[in-house]
Amino acid sequence: MCCVQLITVDDITAAGERVANVVVRTPLLPFPDSTPERTFWLKPENLQPVGAFKIRGAYNAVAQLPQRSRSSGVVAYSSGNHAQAVAYAAKVFGIPATIVLPDSAPAVKVDATRKHGAEVIKVPMAERESRAHQLVEQRGAMLIPPFDHPDVIAGQGTIGLEIAEDLPDVEVVLIPISGGGLASGIGTAIRARCPRARVYGVEPELAADAAESFRAGELVHWPSERRARTIADGLRAEPSDLTLAHLRAVLDGILTVSEDEIRMAMATLIKKTRTIVEPAGAVAAAAYLYRAAELPAGRTVAVVSGGNIDPDLLTAIWMQNGATGGSAW
Amino acid sequence: MCCVQLITVDDITAAGERVANVVVRTPLLPFPDSTPERTFWLKPENLQPVGAFKIRGAYNAVAQLPQRSRSSGVVAYSSGNHAQAVAYAAKVFGIPATIVLPDSAPAVKVDATRKHGAEVIKVPMAERESRAHQLVEQRGAMLIPPFDHPDVIAGQGTIGLEIAEDLPDVEVVLIPISGGGLASGIGTAIRARCPRARVYGVEPELAADAAESFRAGELVHWPSERRARTIADGLRAEPSDLTLAHLRAVLDGILTVSEDEIRMAMATLIKKTRTIVEPAGAVAAAAYLYRAAELPAGRTVAVVSGGNIDPDLLTAIWMQNGATGGSAW
Repeated sequence: MCCVQLITVDDITAAGERVANVVVRTPLLPFPDSTPERTFWLKPENLQPVGAFKIRGAYNAVAQLPQRSRSSGVVAYSSGNHAQAVAYAAKVFGIPATIVLPDSAPAVKVDATRKHGAEVIKVPMAERESRAHQLVEQRGAMLIPPFDHPDVIAGQGTIGLEIAEDLPDVEVVLIPISGGGLASGIGTAIRARCPRARVYGVEPELAADAAESFRAGELVHWPSERRARTIADGLRAEPSDLTLAHLRAVLDGILTVSEDEIRMAMATLIKKTRTIVEPAGAVAAAAYLYRAAELPAGRTVAVVSGGNIDPDLLTAIWMQNGATGGSAW
Repeated sequence: MCCVQLITVDDITAAGERVANVVVRTPLLPFPDSTPERTFWLKPENLQPVGAFKIRGAYNAVAQLPQRSRSSGVVAYSSGNHAQAVAYAAKVFGIPATIVLPDSAPAVKVDATRKHGAEVIKVPMAERESRAHQLVEQRGAMLIPPFDHPDVIAGQGTIGLEIAEDLPDVEVVLIPISGGGLASGIGTAIRARCPRARVYGVEPELAADAAESFRAGELVHWPSERRARTIADGLRAEPSDLTLAHLRAVLDGILTVSEDEIRMAMATLIKKTRTIVEPAGAVAAAAYLYRAAELPAGRTVAVVSGGNIDPDLLTAIWMQNGATGGSAW
């Protein structure tokens, strides 16, 4: 880890200028039931184009492709929100995008990616990464990784600049952790702009590999089957050397929340902020709602990372946790 | 109508300064499926505290109460979003608020209003207005009407200033109409700041009294039972002399949409913008989606007025129009 170079707030500021015309400047939404001691706001990145914060990092990376390389295009092999973000960003620049998806990917995701003009290549799950690297070599295309890249981290960090701008005296910032790019970027921005704020990552208990790595001070690998147990399909990746180095430099800790807490928080956010949240998007709010004892008091912001959820799952969670008339809207 | 005084963009600018610290600065959300000829954005006022644009007008009115009158408090007799907005605004200033509700009001609305610290007085529906005026006389309290007041109209107009700031070359603006305060305010702002833009009101066919009044050039009364047929419970009021004068001065026309179009638009907005929309909040988007032939082309903004919907109704509309996996998220 001696040679890992951390990004700086200047990298994030430069990213902010690049993404300004494409990214929605999300407001802080006041949470209606918070107390004066723990006033609470949501940063609703589920309102972004493609429904997730991923557009920030992907766009910041694509925007820095040298002009001579643009015709060779970009490649991504995420099957989640990052793939659509890369396709979307490439479309804005008129750059060809190739997205490698597992052949098990649902038609709705394939369609959504194609809709942004990307070429979709379906391969067996185990071949995704190798096929993507093959495309990079064959075509001279640039691989845009979902989190393990300074430009991607800097792009996600623009959320932190906006939080600092809208609430300069923020005291607690809660951020979902998967690969760790989001928390690395936001944490870097908050450390620089609001040095007195505490910054925490939040993971599902069932995919708490980053929490374990953070405590151990080195990457602790959890097999993908173990991480896949959580309902939060957006939080099943694991940190890299690059992101863990950032997390250790900028976070005060990593909390975990249970699956039930994630489901309850989803229904609460739908009702109280009137936005649709995917399971990964609800974990930071779940920490505020159900893990108060593990957090300092004060003005708190939770990042809602995304809102891309299978309609059937949304229906099920809503019917179980939110649809009853008894709970006030 | 000779003596009706229209508000000006200066009134709205002043309102904008008053409300800035309480109102969420809502962004324009790009609609993913719009065409280059008719690029489309939503202005999501369902993200406001109290879940609707009403906080803007109510707060602007309450903020202008003379200091000596504040201890006497404010009164409102809306049973909808306006009542909660007045209660919320009064709470911010520490002013007593009394909300007169029909004794048929659902417990969830009574609770929500009380939660903001307001006193709730329940009376038979027919006595709401007289009881409110009685309170005004007895207590010296100020009545904050839902739309028939220049300060309320100016507050709602701040949405127009924000649209003009974020999209100066907007070409078409679509606004729900009930009592007409929202369209009066936004229309005034857009006329001043984007004089080339066309501005349209949108009503349900089943409560198209404002459309008829607009064409007739004078108030045409529809009995409340007739207006009550629409699912859009937020659009069952009728314009006043004050708002009709504004509408005639600033609108290019008033379109109507069907009940089915409202339901389909609600499900579409939930999916495409990941926000919860009440029926009234969906009519402007429904005009864009289903009445294109009646509208000019160009960069279009639809105002989503609110997101306060009974959970059971939301469930029903979602299950009928949105929950199927077939339609892409």
